[in-house]
Amino acid sequence: VVPSGVSPAMIDKGNHRHFMQKEIYEQPVVVAQTLQSYLRPVEEMVALPDMDFDLAGVERVAIVACGTASYVGMIGKYWIEQFARVPVEVDVASEFRYRDPVLLPNTLGVVVSQSGETADTLAALRHMKEHGVTTAGIINVPTSSMAREVDLLLSTHAGPEIGVASTKAFTCQLAVMAALAVNLARAKGKLGGDEETEIVRHLVEAPASINAALAHDAEIEAMAHTIAQARDVLYLGRGPDYPLALEGALKLKEISYIHAEGYASGEMKHGPIALIDDNVPLIVLAPSGPLFDKTVSNMQEAQARGARVVLISDAEGLKLAGEDAVATIEMPKVHPLISPIVYAVPVQLLAYHVAVAKGTDVDQPRNLAKSVTVE
Amino acid sequence: VVPSGVSPAMIDKGNHRHFMQKEIYEQPVVVAQTLQSYLRPVEEMVALPDMDFDLAGVERVAIVACGTASYVGMIGKYWIEQFARVPVEVDVASEFRYRDPVLLPNTLGVVVSQSGETADTLAALRHMKEHGVTTAGIINVPTSSMAREVDLLLSTHAGPEIGVASTKAFTCQLAVMAALAVNLARAKGKLGGDEETEIVRHLVEAPASINAALAHDAEIEAMAHTIAQARDVLYLGRGPDYPLALEGALKLKEISYIHAEGYASGEMKHGPIALIDDNVPLIVLAPSGPLFDKTVSNMQEAQARGARVVLISDAEGLKLAGEDAVATIEMPKVHPLISPIVYAVPVQLLAYHVAVAKGTDVDQPRNLAKSVTVE
Repeated sequence: VVPSGVSPAMIDKGNHRHFMQKEIYEQPVVVAQTLQSYLRPVEEMVALPDMDFDLAGVERVAIVACGTASYVGMIGKYWIEQFARVPVEVDVASEFRYRDPVLLPNTLGVVVSQSGETADTLAALRHMKEHGVTTAGIINVPTSSMAREVDLLLSTHAGPEIGVASTKAFTCQLAVMAALAVNLARAKGKLGGDEETEIVRHLVEAPASINAALAHDAEIEAMAHTIAQARDVLYLGRGPDYPLALEGALKLKEISYIHAEGYASGEMKHGPIALIDDNVPLIVLAPSGPLFDKTVSNMQEAQARGARVVLISDAEGLKLAGEDAVATIEMPKVHPLISPIVYAVPVQLLAYHVAVAKGTDVDQPRNLAKSVTVE
Repeated sequence: VVPSGVSPAMIDKGNHRHFMQKEIYEQPVVVAQTLQSYLRPVEEMVALPDMDFDLAGVERVAIVACGTASYVGMIGKYWIEQFARVPVEVDVASEFRYRDPVLLPNTLGVVVSQSGETADTLAALRHMKEHGVTTAGIINVPTSSMAREVDLLLSTHAGPEIGVASTKAFTCQLAVMAALAVNLARAKGKLGGDEETEIVRHLVEAPASINAALAHDAEIEAMAHTIAQARDVLYLGRGPDYPLALEGALKLKEISYIHAEGYASGEMKHGPIALIDDNVPLIVLAPSGPLFDKTVSNMQEAQARGARVVLISDAEGLKLAGEDAVATIEMPKVHPLISPIVYAVPVQLLAYHVAVAKGTDVDQPRNLAKSVTVE
């Protein structure tokens, strides 16, 4: 029996104005709930459910998903390659299924989907199975088609997600992806017991760090009015924060209809910087750490051209580079592994408050459906 | 001696208003000139320069580039996987160099750069060489650092490119990438002599097809005034036309400062379709063929929500789906292999004429440098 995390109390808005807001605030609980299934805190080990194949035999990973879930795949690529040294390919499902992908032996196929019914992802899963690929699925609805069809179900326990723009499902998917990366790393002999202990401690801290991020809600709400007047917004990040920049832009696009776009920081100067003038806010995701200086240097190039920067970093990063920002959002100092899980919160809150400021229909944005069961 | 394609006559604008326009018009000649180095028309075979490693031993390909050249890499992935069945990974150089990529034995590293001096790409090349990876470079400047450092130089013969927005370098890079894909396919035993003959015939036709595409310049100029009024433009494509959608958007962004964005057609419904209203033109790249119906179905979803569609297709495609478009651009009917080379022309011309209509500095757009020799 796989616990679904559903209880009747979770299907109303409680004292929140929108489902999306409620779901953003549920994240400390549902991420903890999800991690509980994958961590053994006493032994300080990560553990996946029993499976009838050997992770040690996995020589490559193919992750397939759509939209927000595809960004979980991109972040997973950074993590899996870093920890397990196994090459990872990430595809959006609508491209994967039609490009006759090269599927070599000993590939683990991973699908990521909140509903487990996304048409293109389901078709991609079936394509992989037909080609003899062993599959795992990071899925929120345990009774869904994908959940039934994967070889290894890796459930997220986010509970029902009602807002069309995915929030808590995303962070729960990341938590499971992190557990998968660590398990694979151990199976491949790339992770010492001490390293695993350290990672488990950081993952256990994630819910508290999400809480610390949520504590900045009022500041984010206050600055949302400025962003709400923009026609265009750019998001920048490096490494695992690059897919998070894509997610931040998608979230803003989905519910506020502002044309937001995410870029790998280093790519700005190869074209997008031409867009920059003093009307284009630039949201920079830059935890302090080895990539910080490079991202800040790209940020400063844009500032020199008039960009109004919102810098999201920890105290150390804000102290070093926050001076010329029009606004800053302080995150707790976290380990790089959990930083995408924690930095997801300010990008979600920013999109939420901008949409509220613009008066759009947050939970049911125009043109979009929650579960995309057509191609 | 590597011919550079430089002659003094090529460094003025001739009877063109801008270098970019001149360079777009040079494409039939420079693509032919580039292909000449890689095709043996009598034997109807593709041939690379002599190399001191065996292509048959290549088990995976890692392509690294920035900006427009990275889209050549993405198109190359479709081609190489389709023809040679060798898995390909594509990275933007600024991400590749900092993510400690997994570089397995028997990887062919491929860098793509017009200048051969792009800082991030050069650093990525050096990273690959330090890790024992055999490298090839698709490069336009034969005296550049990258040209000197790669194991196998695959020159493009585009001649000097003066306009900051790359045009003729892009199509020449694609021509060389096609030759590389075919050579690799033959070396891996995945290509019969008849297939190679057929592909060579199609490649030989590419310059004439580019000419046929250029013949629609006046129509594109006429419609550019409509696009010039837009604040946002979306580009859609599937398969190899998806990176071309990214390139179309980048080109428009670079020189007209309109916020354009490219998407894989199937991803529209996972978020970006929320942007669509009757102010957002949608440029759809859809040659007739196996992916046509799927792309048209995504296009129609957007049309139902008010999108004003510009459909770029061949006569067959326009007949099937052009009726509700606000404008259409007819391309010659071409083989899927050369379609990105030919469809590049209308996206370049559209960006060019929109920028002229807006009165921006086409050849020297704000904030951008031709060769990005800083990180």
